[in-house]
Amino acid sequence: MNRPVIFSLAATALLIVVTACTNKTSPLTQTAKSSLPKNIIMVVADGMGPVYPTAYRYYQDNPNSPLVERTIFDRTLVGIASTYPAAESGFISTSDSSGAALASGIKKNNFYVTDSAASATALAAGIKTYNGAIGVDQNKQAHLTVLEWAKAIGKKTGIAVTSQIVHATPASYLAKNEKRSNYNAIADNYFDLKIDGHFKADVMLGGGTKYFIRDDRNLKDEFVANGYQYIDNFSQLAELDKNKPVLGLFAKVGLPAALNSKDKVRLKTMTQAAIKQLQNDKGFFLLVEASQIDWGGHSNDIAYAMGEMHDLATTMSYLYDYVQANPDTLVVVTADHNTGGFSIGANGEYKWNPEYIKSLKKSPNTIAEQLSSEAIQINQLSNLLGYELSKQELAQFTAIKQGAINAKSLKKSIAKDYYQLLLSIVNQRSNSGWTTTGHTGMDVPVYAFGKGKENFQGFQDNIEIADKLFKLMAKSQ
Amino acid sequence: MNRPVIFSLAATALLIVVTACTNKTSPLTQTAKSSLPKNIIMVVADGMGPVYPTAYRYYQDNPNSPLVERTIFDRTLVGIASTYPAAESGFISTSDSSGAALASGIKKNNFYVTDSAASATALAAGIKTYNGAIGVDQNKQAHLTVLEWAKAIGKKTGIAVTSQIVHATPASYLAKNEKRSNYNAIADNYFDLKIDGHFKADVMLGGGTKYFIRDDRNLKDEFVANGYQYIDNFSQLAELDKNKPVLGLFAKVGLPAALNSKDKVRLKTMTQAAIKQLQNDKGFFLLVEASQIDWGGHSNDIAYAMGEMHDLATTMSYLYDYVQANPDTLVVVTADHNTGGFSIGANGEYKWNPEYIKSLKKSPNTIAEQLSSEAIQINQLSNLLGYELSKQELAQFTAIKQGAINAKSLKKSIAKDYYQLLLSIVNQRSNSGWTTTGHTGMDVPVYAFGKGKENFQGFQDNIEIADKLFKLMAKSQ
Repeated sequence: MNRPVIFSLAATALLIVVTACTNKTSPLTQTAKSSLPKNIIMVVADGMGPVYPTAYRYYQDNPNSPLVERTIFDRTLVGIASTYPAAESGFISTSDSSGAALASGIKKNNFYVTDSAASATALAAGIKTYNGAIGVDQNKQAHLTVLEWAKAIGKKTGIAVTSQIVHATPASYLAKNEKRSNYNAIADNYFDLKIDGHFKADVMLGGGTKYFIRDDRNLKDEFVANGYQYIDNFSQLAELDKNKPVLGLFAKVGLPAALNSKDKVRLKTMTQAAIKQLQNDKGFFLLVEASQIDWGGHSNDIAYAMGEMHDLATTMSYLYDYVQANPDTLVVVTADHNTGGFSIGANGEYKWNPEYIKSLKKSPNTIAEQLSSEAIQINQLSNLLGYELSKQELAQFTAIKQGAINAKSLKKSIAKDYYQLLLSIVNQRSNSGWTTTGHTGMDVPVYAFGKGKENFQGFQDNIEIADKLFKLMAKSQ
Repeated sequence: MNRPVIFSLAATALLIVVTACTNKTSPLTQTAKSSLPKNIIMVVADGMGPVYPTAYRYYQDNPNSPLVERTIFDRTLVGIASTYPAAESGFISTSDSSGAALASGIKKNNFYVTDSAASATALAAGIKTYNGAIGVDQNKQAHLTVLEWAKAIGKKTGIAVTSQIVHATPASYLAKNEKRSNYNAIADNYFDLKIDGHFKADVMLGGGTKYFIRDDRNLKDEFVANGYQYIDNFSQLAELDKNKPVLGLFAKVGLPAALNSKDKVRLKTMTQAAIKQLQNDKGFFLLVEASQIDWGGHSNDIAYAMGEMHDLATTMSYLYDYVQANPDTLVVVTADHNTGGFSIGANGEYKWNPEYIKSLKKSPNTIAEQLSSEAIQINQLSNLLGYELSKQELAQFTAIKQGAINAKSLKKSIAKDYYQLLLSIVNQRSNSGWTTTGHTGMDVPVYAFGKGKENFQGFQDNIEIADKLFKLMAKSQ
C-alpha cells in the first residue's frame, strides 16, 4: 500500500500537505516480511562528527594497558552519512561577508553545512530542506516522517531526548513548522497534529515545561485530560503505568548537562523507561537523542561533550544488550552534523592529553558559577581541576575577580569570563583544537545493530536513512 | 607454513630481527584459496582524514544539479580505522609545555596522535610503534611487511608515490630504520636489503634523485648494473621494457604538487605504468601513495589538498575500472592520519564556499612565487584568483611588497609572505577552518573494492589492515 495522507490538519497558519515519499535510489536489500524488524530505535547524536567517538575512545582508555580499549561505537560502526542541506538557488551577493565584490558568474547554490533542523528533517522525512525547517521542504510543504508512519501502521511511538522535547531534532519527527525557534507552535503541534485521530507519540521524555505549561495554553493539562500520565521527576520513571501514554518533562528547557546531573547517564535512564512503556505486540518506533554533544561542541567545551558522549555510549551499550535479548529490534545511530571543528591535537603538537579532561571533579561551567558566586575560592581550583595551576593561570583568575570588583560586573558576566578562561586552560592543556562555535560539514558516522543493520553499511546520504527505515516498515504492510 | 626469516641482513648499524607476526584478533573471514586475491593494491592517502573526501565531494559538486554528485570515495567506503601510535611509558614531566607543575599520579602514556612513519609501519607490518619509526618496533627491532611477504611468496612488488620514494610511507614498506629522516640510509636499504636474494621492489616510481645519486654512493648506477631500467621523465613511462624492473625518479625530492604539474593526475599515470609492469601469473603487491594531501594539510592550503585529492580520486577510479576487468584484484585505500584539523565551515558560519578554491587559475604558492619574482603584478591577481580582491586585500599585498623593498628582504621570504596572505584569503572566503599545521588523531576512512573487500568493513585498527593483508596472502601458501 502507498503511504496515505494521514494528517488531521490542525488550524495552523502553515499549510500542511502530505506528499508521497519521493522515490529515491535506496540500496535496501529485498527482504521477506519475517526479516523486517518489529521495533526500530533511531538514535541521533546531535553534533557528533566522527572525531567525537574517536576522542571518547581515547578519553576512556585505560593508560595501563598497551592497546586502547574499544568502545561500543567501534563495535557497531557500519558506515558514514553525508549531511548537506538543500541547495539555495541564485548568485552570491556582492555584499558578501568578506566585503569584496565578486566576478559575475560564480554560482553559489550550496553552502554544504547543515543545521540540526534540516538534518533531522532529512533523517525523519527523507527530504533535503533548508536550515531551520521542521518537517517541511523548501516550499514549506509538510512531509511524512518515519515516526508518523510507524504510528500509522499501528506501532507505538516515543521520543527520549536530553534537550527540550520541542528542540529541532525531536520536533522534526513530530511537528511541522517553517522555523525551528517557534517552540510554542511546535509544542502545540504535539497535541494538535494527529495520526488517524491518535496522538503521534505515546512517550515523550525530555525537557521543556516552559513550552507546555504556558499562560496562553497548558498543554500538560490537555494531555492529562486526554489520558496521558505526566511526570516531572526522574524518580517517577520507575513507577509509570504501563497502560497509559506518558509526558515527562524534567526541566524548564533542556536537561542539565550530564556532568551536572545526579544521574550521569540520564539518557540511558529515559531510554530504558521509554522502551518499557513502548513494548507491545505490534512493535514500536523510538527516537532517542543525545542532544547535548552539540551544546558542548558549540561551547568548545570538550569536558561537556565527553560527559554527553559517556551518556550516549552507556545508552548504546544498554540498547546493544536489549537487541541481544530482542533480536527483532533494529538500532540505528547517527549524527545530524559535526559541531565545533574539534580536533584531537592542535597547534602543531602530535598529542592529545585527555587526562586534563578526565581529572575534572566538576564541569567547567559549574566551577565558573561557583567561583563567581564565591561558593568556592580561586585557591581551591587545583583540587577541582585535578592538577596544579601555574602562577600565570592563577593570575588570570585573580585578574577576572579584581576586574569584576572594580567594574561592579554582574555575576553572570563574571561567570562567563571564568568559564572561558577554564575552557582555554582545558583546551590548551589537553591540546584540543576548534575552528568554530558553529557546525561543520563533514560526513558523520553511522552505527547499526540488530535486525536489518546490513542496510546501513558503507556510504549513504542522510535522506537515505529515512528511506531505508520507511522501507523496513512499509514492507511489513 | 609460518612466515620465515627472509632478510639478507645488510651491514647496517641497526639490528634487524624478523619476528613472527604477532597474533592479534582479526575478523578475517575463513576463505578458501580460490577466493583469495591474486593482486593486492594498497593505497595510502597521506593525511586524508575523513573531512577531505567530504570536502572533495562538495569541491567537485555541479552547482546546477539539486543533489550533490557522489564520488569514487562514496562508492567504495567500507569502514574506518584508528591510527594511534604506541603508548609511551612513564609519567608526565613537571616541565610540561604549559609550564605548570602537575599533581602527581596523572599518567600520560599515550598521546594518540601518530606521524606518518608510525602509522605506515602499522599498515605495512601490523605493529604499533613510536613516531618516526620505519619498519621497526619500540625496541628498534625490524618487522616483516606485507610487501616483503608478497615478494617472499613469489609475487612482483612495487611502489608508486608522489613524495620522494624514501619518504615515511613507502620507506615503512621497504626499509628498516629507527628514524624517518635518515633518507640516505633508507635509500641504501632499498638496494642492500633483499628478500631471498631478490630486490624488494620490482617497480619504484616517485621522487628522490637526491638520495639515490649521491657523492658517496650512486644507487641509480647500482640498480642499473643489476638489471633495472632507470627513467627520470614521465614520458618514458609509456616506453618501459616489460621484462626489466624499473627505478623511476622524477624529481630531486618530492614531485611537484598536482596543481603545479603538467600532468594533474600524475599518480594515476604512475599507477597505471606500475601495474603494467607488475602484472604476472603469480600476482603482485603494489603500494600507491597520494603523499601530498598531507603536505597541503600541513600548509593549511586547501587548494593544494584538493588538487591532490583529485589526483587520488582519478587514480581510484582507474583502479576501480581495473578491478572490474581483473576481479582477482583487491584494492584497499586508507589514510595514515588526519592533517591540519581542517573543517568545512568555520568561524560560526554555516557555509563552505569551494568556488573560491575552484576558481584559482594557478596554485597559491605559484602565484606567490610569481609575485615575488615580479613575473606577475598585484593588479593581475584578480584574474589568477578568479574573483575581484577587495581594496583591503589588495592593500595587504602592496604592504608586503613595499615592506620587502624597504627591508631589502630575500625573494624567498617575500614569496612566503605572499603565500600566507593568499592562503588566509582563500581560507577566509571559502570559510575553511584549521586547528594545526601538524596532525590530529581522528579515525580515518577505509575504502575497499575487489576480491576480499568484505574483510575491511566496519571499524578496525590500522595494524589490523596489515594483519588482514598478511592473511589474504599467507593463506594462499
